[in-house]
Amino acid sequence: MTTPDLPSLAEVLPAGVLTTEPATLEGYRFDWSHDETAGTPLAVVRAESAEQVQAAVRWAAAHRVPVVPRGAGSGLSGGASAVDGGIVVSLERMRAIEIDAASGVAVVEPGALNAAVKQAAAAEGLWYPPDPASYEMCSIGGNIATNAGGLCCVKYGVTADYVLGLDVVLADGTLVTLGGKRVKDVAGLPLLKLYVGSEGTLGIVTRAVLRLVPSQGPLATMVATFASMTEAARAVVEIRRRMRPSMLELMDTATINAVEDLKPRGLDREAGAFLIAQSDAPGDARGLEIEAMGEVCEASGAAEVLATTDPEESEMFVDARRAAFTALETKGSALLEDVGVPVPLLPELVGGVARIAAERETTIAVVAHAGDGNSHPFIVFDANDPDAVARSRRAFEDVMALAISLGGTITGEHGVGRAKRDALPAQLGEDVMALNLTVKRALDPAGILNPGALL
Amino acid sequence: MTTPDLPSLAEVLPAGVLTTEPATLEGYRFDWSHDETAGTPLAVVRAESAEQVQAAVRWAAAHRVPVVPRGAGSGLSGGASAVDGGIVVSLERMRAIEIDAASGVAVVEPGALNAAVKQAAAAEGLWYPPDPASYEMCSIGGNIATNAGGLCCVKYGVTADYVLGLDVVLADGTLVTLGGKRVKDVAGLPLLKLYVGSEGTLGIVTRAVLRLVPSQGPLATMVATFASMTEAARAVVEIRRRMRPSMLELMDTATINAVEDLKPRGLDREAGAFLIAQSDAPGDARGLEIEAMGEVCEASGAAEVLATTDPEESEMFVDARRAAFTALETKGSALLEDVGVPVPLLPELVGGVARIAAERETTIAVVAHAGDGNSHPFIVFDANDPDAVARSRRAFEDVMALAISLGGTITGEHGVGRAKRDALPAQLGEDVMALNLTVKRALDPAGILNPGALL
Ligand SMILES: Cc1cc2nc3c(=O)[nH]c(=O)nc-3n(C[C@H](O)[C@H](O)[C@H](O)COP(=O)(O)OP(=O)(O)OC[C@H]3O[C@@H](n4cnc5c(N)ncnc54)[C@H](O)[C@@H]3O)c2cc1C
Ligand SMILES: Cc1cc2nc3c(=O)[nH]c(=O)nc-3n(C[C@H](O)[C@H](O)[C@H](O)COP(=O)(O)OP(=O)(O)OC[C@H]3O[C@@H](n4cnc5c(N)ncnc54)[C@H](O)[C@@H]3O)c2cc1C
Repeated sequence: MTTPDLPSLAEVLPAGVLTTEPATLEGYRFDWSHDETAGTPLAVVRAESAEQVQAAVRWAAAHRVPVVPRGAGSGLSGGASAVDGGIVVSLERMRAIEIDAASGVAVVEPGALNAAVKQAAAAEGLWYPPDPASYEMCSIGGNIATNAGGLCCVKYGVTADYVLGLDVVLADGTLVTLGGKRVKDVAGLPLLKLYVGSEGTLGIVTRAVLRLVPSQGPLATMVATFASMTEAARAVVEIRRRMRPSMLELMDTATINAVEDLKPRGLDREAGAFLIAQSDAPGDARGLEIEAMGEVCEASGAAEVLATTDPEESEMFVDARRAAFTALETKGSALLEDVGVPVPLLPELVGGVARIAAERETTIAVVAHAGDGNSHPFIVFDANDPDAVARSRRAFEDVMALAISLGGTITGEHGVGRAKRDALPAQLGEDVMALNLTVKRALDPAGILNPGALL
Repeated sequence: MTTPDLPSLAEVLPAGVLTTEPATLEGYRFDWSHDETAGTPLAVVRAESAEQVQAAVRWAAAHRVPVVPRGAGSGLSGGASAVDGGIVVSLERMRAIEIDAASGVAVVEPGALNAAVKQAAAAEGLWYPPDPASYEMCSIGGNIATNAGGLCCVKYGVTADYVLGLDVVLADGTLVTLGGKRVKDVAGLPLLKLYVGSEGTLGIVTRAVLRLVPSQGPLATMVATFASMTEAARAVVEIRRRMRPSMLELMDTATINAVEDLKPRGLDREAGAFLIAQSDAPGDARGLEIEAMGEVCEASGAAEVLATTDPEESEMFVDARRAAFTALETKGSALLEDVGVPVPLLPELVGGVARIAAERETTIAVVAHAGDGNSHPFIVFDANDPDAVARSRRAFEDVMALAISLGGTITGEHGVGRAKRDALPAQLGEDVMALNLTVKRALDPAGILNPGALL
């Protein structure tokens, strides 16, 4: 490979936007997964406008240079890992947010943090529901590129359900606008949704129109402990069969203890599983829903059930759940899964994960967006022990194979990225893989957009 | 064009599935829009299995014969119009429905009617929300191909929001399975949603996994009359700004009168506009929501406001709304619009439509899924008066141009089909049209799938 003509890129971008400074480049190599295979980019473009993104992509297309789009770098699957000889196009500086309250939409630049969009909406009595546990540090562009989920999506759906419009820079630098502020629109092929969850492999999002809903009402919270994850998972299945809580999250004993180690909150360290559920049903329905969930938990063998409407106490429990990854990461090196199964198979999934942990002699903590059947087995190991590394690696693959065998998925919300790419064909099969490649080739014929991610 | 080798198709399909009988063919030429440009097919394949659909498409691919997929033929944009020299693949015989209550999904064949899916779900205490006014006569396959909306989508979203999995026969006859019973799945490019709303131009749906939710609770209904559509539209904007009713529909005076002519229900024939809203909020919140909507209507100048929780009375009002198209069709020949705008621009839209009707000296009745900004101006004219035909045609185009000028869409839910194809480039622009064609060519290189529809 000849070194591409960086000066010609510098000519079309203002000073300060293009960086080749090695120390700066280092900060753009990894996402949260610290993918070992990440390369070192030639340059980082910290774009301040869609035009600059276009300029960078046009240059990259002309020189056949890989382009890795990057939001806030909180991704967990190496989707934003830098590529040797490529450039990183970071959207972190494009953060404008405009709320159109009458239309019930937010018009946002991709670098805006999820939390900032929520906050701007709240100021107008509106709500942007998608809430990845990382909401204070992830960008809307990254949320769109991964079709991020979160805690409230058991009732309110995922990012894709809130995207009404997108501006996208295509592989040749063309900027297209898809959709807009109208709620319903079926004019033309449904291309808008093709970009939600495409992990930066088909285009770079430079603007989004997001649907907002009226502010969430008051919450009631129920927490329950169980002797085992399997019992707790059975309670989840039964709850989901009967109602739609606005949150239904699960942690196992390893996670409870890690969270307590990080910051003691009085969770029961002896419990085999900790379930946290919320209801935002209006009026008297809220109390009834919480009560009904408590009854299901008791009937499923819960050791303890507690209900609260105190906002501070509730937030303390939810915050414990959100801290799970950060807490577990202090325990060693990590391989994080994101497997999902049809909800009734959740007990089989958690049972199977425990079996794999025993077989591979490795620790696997489990945190789950349980209400959606989406679970995060978290494999913790000692990176200095080559055998432990190898066993963890095999456990990682076993868990994905288990999910596939249960009619599930290797990734419910974090994306395939680079971490799960090799497992994708086993889930999709030959014909669907071919279909993926057909679409990729049609929309990025030179393969410059995030090569190595997803496909 | 040489006549393709029909006997070779008969060889791969059981007797009774393939028909070339002229009287039968006639019944497969039109959808509900009675598109004048519809051709006459060579043959109709009334498939009884995905394998038969594959056999038909493989044969069509080999002989470069156009294939028009067809559900129940209730489409309003000529999407299922037959093509001269092509075949129609009708899915009407594939009607199996299986409810997996534990997973909260229905697994259905495409020919199943929307109403049948609702009924099967209800038997398990579950609900399939999407409810086109045609729900008793349209198929799930057609709903998926058009991304159908309906009355409750102001709160519950459109068909796309409920599709978790699809089996699709591609342009070369390959059968792929996308998604499945898991609620969240981001493995691979988001191709599933590319087929929802693609109007049979990218593949034929042979099976769908649909998300169900717990049964809808009791309903409360509010109806209000206004002197003008503009006043009523302003009330709609204000209601939507503050809450999420489960229905928010609007009819103008021409529609009210047509509906009353068809079957008198005691609607006020003098009213300029009739608004019907429902709340399905649980418990005491329901009454409060209805009350709040009534207050908004009164503040917006409503002449009369009535609230009811009586199921029969409520259903009578909703049924009046559902009868709108059928009632208006008795008044003459019709051109039906499906324009949508951002909700706050609804008053401008209805005002603009009235202006166009006056300018073009033609009658335009208006029915609207008002809560979504999606409206159906219904142009009624005398087909025997060539000048009236020409004026109506121009009004049809004016209304679409108006919607586009308001940042809206030429079609919110009925699809582009053949009726609105010529207006599509004006909405999408050159670059997005090119993107549509790129995807179409990649997935149907020979252009055999529903040629002339959408693109
Ligand atoms: C503690 C913690 C908790 C988390 N919890 C959740 C959770 O509950 N649910 C969940 O879904 N995820 C969760 N995540 C994962 C992560 O936060 C999400 O994947 C998030 O959407 C990534 O956003 P980002 O801005 O950090 O994107 P990045 O990591 O920068 O990039 C992610 C992917 O998006 C692409 N991309 C970014 N911006 C654009 C753009 N503008 N155009 C095109 N492509 C782009 C990148 O190329 C990459 O493929 C968690 C992460 C952490 C660290
Ligand atoms: C009185 C009345 C009221 C209506 N109200 C509404 C409403 O409220 N909301 C709304 O959205 N629509 C409404 N419609 C329009 C219509 O009912 C919908 O568009 C419906 O989704 C069409 O379904 P169908 O089975 O009749 O499809 P068809 O008319 O047979 O076909 C529609 C399109 O789908 C394609 N298609 C059908 N089946 C398949 C398949 N299995 N695979 C691939 N492509 C396929 C066809 O090629 C065609 O392009 C109404 C129609 C009438 C007559």
